[in-house]
Amino acid sequence: MGKWVYLFEEGNASMRDLLGGKGAGLAEMTNIGLPVPPGFTITTEVCNLYMKKGEKVIEELWPMVLENVRIVEEKTGKKFAAKSGLPLLFSVRSGAKFSMPGMMDTVLNIGLNDETVELFSKESSNPRLAYDSYRRLIQMFGDIVLDMGLQPFENELESLKAKKGIKYDVELSADDLKELIKRYFDIYKKFNKEFPQDPFIQLRMAIEAVFRSWNAPRAITYRRINNIPDDLGTAVNVVTMVFGNMGDDSATGVAFTRDPKKGDKGIFGEYLVNAQGEDVVAGIRTPKPIIELKKEMPAVYDELLKFCKILEEHYKDMQDIEFTIEKGKLYMLQVRTGKRTPGAAVKLAMDFLNEGLISEEEAILRVEPSQVDFLLHPRINVSSKLQSIAKGLGASPGAATGKVVFDADLAAKMSDEDVILVRPETVPDDIHGLAAAKGVLTARGGMTSHAAVVARGMGKPAVVGAESIKIDLKERLFTVNGETVKEFDVITIDGTSGNIFKGVAPLIMPELSEDLKNLLSLSDKLANIQVRANADTPEDAKRSYEFGAKGIGLCRTEHMFMAQDRLPAMQEMIVAETIEERKAALEKLLPMQREDFYGIFKEMKGYPVIIRLLDPPLHEFLPKREILKEEISQHEKNGEKDIAEKKKRLLRRAEALKESNPMMGFRGCRLGLVYPEINEMQVRAILEAAAKVMKEGDRVFPEIMVPLVGHINEIRFVREKLEEVAKEVILEQGIQIPYLFGTMIELPRAALRADEIAKYAKFFSFGTNDLTQMTFGFSRDDAESKFLPVYLERGILPVNPFQTLDRDGVGELMKIAVERGKKVNKDLEIGICGEHGGDPESIAFCYEIGLNYVSCSPFRVPVARLAAARATILAKRQYEADK
Amino acid sequence: MGKWVYLFEEGNASMRDLLGGKGAGLAEMTNIGLPVPPGFTITTEVCNLYMKKGEKVIEELWPMVLENVRIVEEKTGKKFAAKSGLPLLFSVRSGAKFSMPGMMDTVLNIGLNDETVELFSKESSNPRLAYDSYRRLIQMFGDIVLDMGLQPFENELESLKAKKGIKYDVELSADDLKELIKRYFDIYKKFNKEFPQDPFIQLRMAIEAVFRSWNAPRAITYRRINNIPDDLGTAVNVVTMVFGNMGDDSATGVAFTRDPKKGDKGIFGEYLVNAQGEDVVAGIRTPKPIIELKKEMPAVYDELLKFCKILEEHYKDMQDIEFTIEKGKLYMLQVRTGKRTPGAAVKLAMDFLNEGLISEEEAILRVEPSQVDFLLHPRINVSSKLQSIAKGLGASPGAATGKVVFDADLAAKMSDEDVILVRPETVPDDIHGLAAAKGVLTARGGMTSHAAVVARGMGKPAVVGAESIKIDLKERLFTVNGETVKEFDVITIDGTSGNIFKGVAPLIMPELSEDLKNLLSLSDKLANIQVRANADTPEDAKRSYEFGAKGIGLCRTEHMFMAQDRLPAMQEMIVAETIEERKAALEKLLPMQREDFYGIFKEMKGYPVIIRLLDPPLHEFLPKREILKEEISQHEKNGEKDIAEKKKRLLRRAEALKESNPMMGFRGCRLGLVYPEINEMQVRAILEAAAKVMKEGDRVFPEIMVPLVGHINEIRFVREKLEEVAKEVILEQGIQIPYLFGTMIELPRAALRADEIAKYAKFFSFGTNDLTQMTFGFSRDDAESKFLPVYLERGILPVNPFQTLDRDGVGELMKIAVERGKKVNKDLEIGICGEHGGDPESIAFCYEIGLNYVSCSPFRVPVARLAAARATILAKRQYEADK
Repeated sequence: MGKWVYLFEEGNASMRDLLGGKGAGLAEMTNIGLPVPPGFTITTEVCNLYMKKGEKVIEELWPMVLENVRIVEEKTGKKFAAKSGLPLLFSVRSGAKFSMPGMMDTVLNIGLNDETVELFSKESSNPRLAYDSYRRLIQMFGDIVLDMGLQPFENELESLKAKKGIKYDVELSADDLKELIKRYFDIYKKFNKEFPQDPFIQLRMAIEAVFRSWNAPRAITYRRINNIPDDLGTAVNVVTMVFGNMGDDSATGVAFTRDPKKGDKGIFGEYLVNAQGEDVVAGIRTPKPIIELKKEMPAVYDELLKFCKILEEHYKDMQDIEFTIEKGKLYMLQVRTGKRTPGAAVKLAMDFLNEGLISEEEAILRVEPSQVDFLLHPRINVSSKLQSIAKGLGASPGAATGKVVFDADLAAKMSDEDVILVRPETVPDDIHGLAAAKGVLTARGGMTSHAAVVARGMGKPAVVGAESIKIDLKERLFTVNGETVKEFDVITIDGTSGNIFKGVAPLIMPELSEDLKNLLSLSDKLANIQVRANADTPEDAKRSYEFGAKGIGLCRTEHMFMAQDRLPAMQEMIVAETIEERKAALEKLLPMQREDFYGIFKEMKGYPVIIRLLDPPLHEFLPKREILKEEISQHEKNGEKDIAEKKKRLLRRAEALKESNPMMGFRGCRLGLVYPEINEMQVRAILEAAAKVMKEGDRVFPEIMVPLVGHINEIRFVREKLEEVAKEVILEQGIQIPYLFGTMIELPRAALRADEIAKYAKFFSFGTNDLTQMTFGFSRDDAESKFLPVYLERGILPVNPFQTLDRDGVGELMKIAVERGKKVNKDLEIGICGEHGGDPESIAFCYEIGLNYVSCSPFRVPVARLAAARATILAKRQYEADK
Repeated sequence: MGKWVYLFEEGNASMRDLLGGKGAGLAEMTNIGLPVPPGFTITTEVCNLYMKKGEKVIEELWPMVLENVRIVEEKTGKKFAAKSGLPLLFSVRSGAKFSMPGMMDTVLNIGLNDETVELFSKESSNPRLAYDSYRRLIQMFGDIVLDMGLQPFENELESLKAKKGIKYDVELSADDLKELIKRYFDIYKKFNKEFPQDPFIQLRMAIEAVFRSWNAPRAITYRRINNIPDDLGTAVNVVTMVFGNMGDDSATGVAFTRDPKKGDKGIFGEYLVNAQGEDVVAGIRTPKPIIELKKEMPAVYDELLKFCKILEEHYKDMQDIEFTIEKGKLYMLQVRTGKRTPGAAVKLAMDFLNEGLISEEEAILRVEPSQVDFLLHPRINVSSKLQSIAKGLGASPGAATGKVVFDADLAAKMSDEDVILVRPETVPDDIHGLAAAKGVLTARGGMTSHAAVVARGMGKPAVVGAESIKIDLKERLFTVNGETVKEFDVITIDGTSGNIFKGVAPLIMPELSEDLKNLLSLSDKLANIQVRANADTPEDAKRSYEFGAKGIGLCRTEHMFMAQDRLPAMQEMIVAETIEERKAALEKLLPMQREDFYGIFKEMKGYPVIIRLLDPPLHEFLPKREILKEEISQHEKNGEKDIAEKKKRLLRRAEALKESNPMMGFRGCRLGLVYPEINEMQVRAILEAAAKVMKEGDRVFPEIMVPLVGHINEIRFVREKLEEVAKEVILEQGIQIPYLFGTMIELPRAALRADEIAKYAKFFSFGTNDLTQMTFGFSRDDAESKFLPVYLERGILPVNPFQTLDRDGVGELMKIAVERGKKVNKDLEIGICGEHGGDPESIAFCYEIGLNYVSCSPFRVPVARLAAARATILAKRQYEADK
């Protein structure tokens, strides 16, 4: 262990670990010549040692403290425990590496006792200030150092005020305060405690109390919640007291060096004349905006401006400062990086870059991806005081307000109005309603339920699995916690937090500011991993392109079949009993698919488009069996024999396709291997569309992806068959169409056998949703509604592995797949198209293991672009640090 | 390439690759001095070369053939293409490495032409034999060498016989045969072909034809079906003709050196006097049992006995031979290892061992595990000619006959009779019916359906997923392919093949012969991997112990809860809304579980017993929702309000517990983490039962297994909680109970993180059913009913990975888990309790990767014991070979 105590001039900003955030800031300011009241910092290491060895550490520490007190006395020309003159007083303040606001302790005015208070009173000519300072010390000391609690003191204060018939503390006269001090001492007696009259004992006990406060229950809880390690310890700052309440030439204030809300230039803050920090809290007077100081104390204001500029240039970031003016003299009491809104973060990063204060890399690191995400969705204005009536899973971010509507048809009909579609759960048949609604709310389902997936794809807010709302479709209302919401009542849903509100909540609409656009362009320049989008329609593709996606990483073809006009043909295909019937139905679907692909290719302007062959189990395209049964009996009653017969056929097929665990059932390439005609039609549609685009003179680059491959023979058999179709189409079209075949890696076995599979795949795309499901054995829907919340709450799992990639398990499989795949084919293109592709921490992992791109929903693309750049920069820095 | 042609005396038994099975056998017999007609073998390499290069290979070969013909002429003193004396004739016979019966070609009597036939007739004084031999040559040559087919010749033969008014070929006189030969030559003319009169050309063309026959379509198909590589090629044997049809001192026959059906000592076979091999097929006369030869030709018989003894001692195995007696002289024409029944295989292995002919290791290798399995189940006597009416999945081996019964209650009531329970699928409520029935047949479900699992556990035959049978529960019948089977009709099911028969099929009941018992004891002695059993009840445990299990590798506690008397308490536990309610229900279950464990411990007599904590999703213990709904409306109609209310509570809980993919849902340790009380009760029951056993002076060794662990925290949290319970019980009981905590490894993540998990687990048990499901992303039930059959049929997967461990994927995860687990804890006990634990190939893999034991259903234990020994021996041999 090194030095135990540092004078402010002995430390600097880089010593946060040792001196804490506050101590390091005070030291840095002292060293760059700003006026900081003299003082010193006891290191966090001493705190940790005290935790281990207790009292005797204080014994060892004490001579060092005395020596530093002596130096401060010299600097200030005042004496601690003075016998004459203005006495030197200290504040003792905790200060850990990370700010833990309100969690730890501070004791002010140390050094006052029955004698020095008289000196203070006399020398300051301000008896009221002197006695008020003294009674505050006695109170804080009792509360914090001697564990007597605040309440007994507050009680006496209130009783005295009541007796005097006054409302505010400041109305107490010096004599009142003397009376209060007497009463306070009586409290000490009741607790059988003594207030130490010796200033040195006060100081020693206060230091020890601050050490102890590191392990106070509330501090431990705060650290647990904020993931702050327990072994950091707190530093203790002993600072010469200055008083902003010494008259009208004194003041106290806080300021940001720029506007933390919008990021605009110019200092931003407020101050109170003749006041101390606490008085701001007491709320007697309204603080004045900082600009007023220019008029009231122009010289001080100019000095403050100058200091702010120095600090910004020094720290190269917007700072949050505390200051006190004592009799016209400005003191800096704290400096730290200022918190800011997401919008300000972007502006500040770009402004600092443009001002030449920071590098491009630094600008990228200044903005958190979550801040960009925040800017991309409508959000509820936090100043509104609406009460949430229920909470579900925030399945698709953003907020929406509209009239409650309980069925998709009605939602579609009311498309001129803002509606929120509310359903027990949604099914493919509801797609037109989802498309028309501003947002969707379901009572059942998890993060991968139909409503959640479709809403995310459309970038519409969705709250799903809100199990506390009871929907009564007959009465057309839902009830929740005693409240009733009827059809056409207005609600607001917040797909970020999962909250549901009655009525209209004021929304803030998103905008892609110039600064944000520039930041993202800069990200693209610096990122070594590309961002693509998951997009299923030409509209999605257009949006993806606009949001800056460099291709489509996943185009799911199934959603194309779920559109109302296509579902009948799809169902025909599914119930087909012969290959001829199936082919006839596929013939109807071919032109529709071709049209979709054509539109998507056009929008992507030559960027690669990965199209996944049909993946979901076929029963997802059929109506639910219960519904079919009801319909059949209805049709039979009505004598509609033909329709009944048709529906019976659907029912028989649905029964035959029923599965116990559809996630692991008859889906993915398994469909294509049993019914090759489906894939053949799809490949034909893709390549015919590509040919059309090329004939129009545009570029196109389709990549055809086989889903759910686990064995080399699956990709081999599928590909061999489809290459024939490709050759056929190329021959027919008379044009050389570029295309690749590749596969999803979404089964553990595919990852393990990636070397074999790479022989038949030109690209891999990690389907980390399924890979996570299989690796953990978690069905996402079931896990998130049944046990995952308990797991997260109790810390059994550190994070939800469906949100952030599990590096240890799923991640190892990915590493294995990359390694083995590239061993066989070093040019293998590898990406990720699971939802993790939009999660910044997961993007960092993807970059680390050498992926070429991440793909995420269009609305996540900007977030992913920033995250991609940050991952690149941070990995580079780590690499350089490791060298 | 080495030597192309080998005289018989130049080869030996080890040259099967080069000389084929037949050639190697003839060579070996020649060399040990048995009378083999002289001849030579053209190697398989020549055949392969011919396939590549064609005709010119024959050019190169020809001088070598001529040289060998010359040597044979010297040996026999006869001339090929003789101008005088008895002419030398050859048969040209194919002979590949592996026997391909009937698939490839043979041409007899080569060397006969218009001239030599006269010599033959004269010298043998047997014109009929001569002309018959000639016409056979012409016929075979036309069919096989010149591709004219057999039919034209058969037509002429039939027409001549009709003209003569005779029935059998042998009734044709020499003159008739001459007439037939003329007619045969006319056929050649019609085909515009010529029969080569030059014996050397005959020989040369016949050799080439045999080469070609290797690639005949039927041969290719046969090889594909039997997994014989295409590049082995066939050898060609040129053998001096001997004639068993030269009079009453001639004969032909086949024999086994011991009884191939029962394994008894003494030769076993049959022969025909004055006949050739073909005549046996023609079926004019019934062959005589070989013992008759003793009377008819005592000297030849003694010689044959002697030869058989020589061959057995030489080959050290029971042999299958062909012989011909030509005018009192015995010739050996073929020797090969004799096929045998499973029962004979066991007896022969033990007899050869006891006779000192083979080693213990060799005896073990003589019996296939599938042969032992065959002996352990009732089986349908193959001689019965019953026609299967339908086929399902053979889910639990063995055959059973009984009256069809369509519900479990009725089956239970009829327990005095033999019944087969037939259901669309079974549910836990049916358990009493399953227990009472001789076998079970379901129309739905796969290899892990309830019926399949329970039946395998009980060792009862089961056919599941027989989708072609349509069950009409109202009419109490099922129909299949036009047949109707009513309740109480008798059927037979074969749980090995999956076949279903109408009526009684004659069954052969299993028995554990002394030889088999001895073989298994020997297996235990030689095996380096232990065999345990999966057993859930004291009865299962008893059976396991009797079958030789060295412990219980998996005791599933859930089946204990499904018994009719326990289910209500279990359901009470599940619907409990407070922890107190849940604990009260668990209190009722505690004594029942304790009793179960007590019984199991007693039966296992101190061997380790691994008990798995509750694993399946809770909804499996509740009635189906549809059924509950019906019942509720019924109860409400009847005004039974209380019962309706109770069932409604069950229904609500069942709705809440509904899952999309229960396999990956709220089960395993997830239950125990959300409701720790359940596991606590179970651990208490286990240890209280153990204490009771110990207090009675018996030994006990419980191992407590936590299911479905995927993350270190799961096992850690569960174990920490349960260790407290264990300490409590030990304190209460005042006795030191030995026990271990361990975990299943059944999730890919558990395998990958085995090093972490091993910190909290004393043992691992691979749950390879689930591990296979997760690694492949196959839901077994869905896969086996939907796409797996197609996969296996088309060769997309080589084997069903649920039957035989997938070494490449699942196996790699297992290897990783073993390696990482042992790195942390070298004493980690590792086993397997998935169904693969009873599969011989999988057992071999488990041995190779260092598992300590395999565990399988009690009825598989004998099979596994043998497989364990074989795996040990084969791995040792491989290791020595690799050295």
